[in-house]
Amino acid sequence: MNFKEKLAQLIEKKNSLLCIGLDIDVEKCPAAVLSQDSPLFYFNKQIIDATADVAVAYKMNSAFYEAHGMAGWRALQETFDYLPSHVLKIADAKRGDIGNTSVKYARALFEELKADAITVNPLLGYDSVQPFIQFPDKGVFFLCLTSNAGSRDFQYFSDGRVTLYQTIAVKVKEWDTQGNCGLVVGATHPQELAAVRQLADVPFLIPGIGAQGGDLELAVQYGTDQDGSMALFNSSRAIIYASAAADFAGAAREQAVKTRDAINSSRGNKTKK
Amino acid sequence: MNFKEKLAQLIEKKNSLLCIGLDIDVEKCPAAVLSQDSPLFYFNKQIIDATADVAVAYKMNSAFYEAHGMAGWRALQETFDYLPSHVLKIADAKRGDIGNTSVKYARALFEELKADAITVNPLLGYDSVQPFIQFPDKGVFFLCLTSNAGSRDFQYFSDGRVTLYQTIAVKVKEWDTQGNCGLVVGATHPQELAAVRQLADVPFLIPGIGAQGGDLELAVQYGTDQDGSMALFNSSRAIIYASAAADFAGAAREQAVKTRDAINSSRGNKTKK
Repeated sequence: MNFKEKLAQLIEKKNSLLCIGLDIDVEKCPAAVLSQDSPLFYFNKQIIDATADVAVAYKMNSAFYEAHGMAGWRALQETFDYLPSHVLKIADAKRGDIGNTSVKYARALFEELKADAITVNPLLGYDSVQPFIQFPDKGVFFLCLTSNAGSRDFQYFSDGRVTLYQTIAVKVKEWDTQGNCGLVVGATHPQELAAVRQLADVPFLIPGIGAQGGDLELAVQYGTDQDGSMALFNSSRAIIYASAAADFAGAAREQAVKTRDAINSSRGNKTKK
Repeated sequence: MNFKEKLAQLIEKKNSLLCIGLDIDVEKCPAAVLSQDSPLFYFNKQIIDATADVAVAYKMNSAFYEAHGMAGWRALQETFDYLPSHVLKIADAKRGDIGNTSVKYARALFEELKADAITVNPLLGYDSVQPFIQFPDKGVFFLCLTSNAGSRDFQYFSDGRVTLYQTIAVKVKEWDTQGNCGLVVGATHPQELAAVRQLADVPFLIPGIGAQGGDLELAVQYGTDQDGSMALFNSSRAIIYASAAADFAGAAREQAVKTRDAINSSRGNKTKK
């Protein structure tokens, strides 16, 4: 079963497009967490236990772990090991390097962390991504149009007909011979989501719906495929830091359920049309 | 003293533009290394001891360490800690993420590893790089035109007047208000090196002269500034795996001296003209 089929099956089974971003930040963690032996992993474990039935995927952005050096690396590994098999584990590392180096990153992410999917920065072109896309069952989401303001600096660069992000979408569609390539397109660009979907009807990883303020209704309408599927909507801070009180995990669950249901309601509106 | 001044001072003092890439690969390590307790760090230590007077900088590509999980991360930290203060320590991690995430990568690279300089992928634009460039004494080398074949896929994308890599060079020049921004331009593109130097007379990190086969004479002629300086030429495999015999470190030194001298001879040819 290739990645796309695996994703479709999980989405249907759980009736959810929700991806929860475990972007751990000790400055935002409840005090009760900080007194634990492994506070980073402890926090993630509580969140996972409270939300795993609601989410289709969890996304760990490696930056938040690397910032803690060895202890962070360990917490990242422990989190990957702990996540249940009925969710997709996404390593959001945005790697990408020349061929012989990307081989090493592929090993780090797929063999060491055992990620089901990763994010990759495509700027270095085909030989830099080939080591990642050779595993049909492992998803590779390429940065296409990111959710931040700086996306304007280079991603909209245009030859008069198409922009760089459109060129990336077309190229990724070409690379996707095994049903395992996807695109990262920010919810903060709803119109562009529709345009990119026209160019490449692949799985989308859509950040920017939570703290970053993207319009959820529009993002679901334009970011999903014709069946209202094939997209993961990521929310990090809005869910995992829903509360800094002792019941932070309960608050995270409440927010996760709310977000899943809001996405599903928008899916319903789309497919009814 | 900002990064550019620090680099100029070191280059003059050591009369070298050589950067040695510690891209550790156990498959290529001498057998005597593999039997050590910490083979990755042991190998690096031998190479550093044998070459530190010849090199201006060492570049650790994080992929080669991450591929070994926790043990690799530890070896990376140990290598950074071990490098003497008279060389620049470059973390070649090619990171880049949205603003609040890049803050975490900056912490990982500058505070945890204590890197003097890093490589950054600029695709996500200004807010993704701002957390890296706020330290005047820390160098930030932005991917501009990479040494690999895949550089053709997106980096040459053109609006009819300028290419993406030229647009990156111009933007980085704008960002360089504190003398700490540089560019990564591969030795495999000698003509383009000259064009990029016209656009942004900043420090260049130039990979591709060793195993990747770039023309050293041309790369030095076009990649250095008018004084034959302000560039670091990186060689990894050709130096550190010069021999797999017991005296691998001696062979690495010999190759490092040869490379430094070849670069200096080309610098002489340039400034004589």
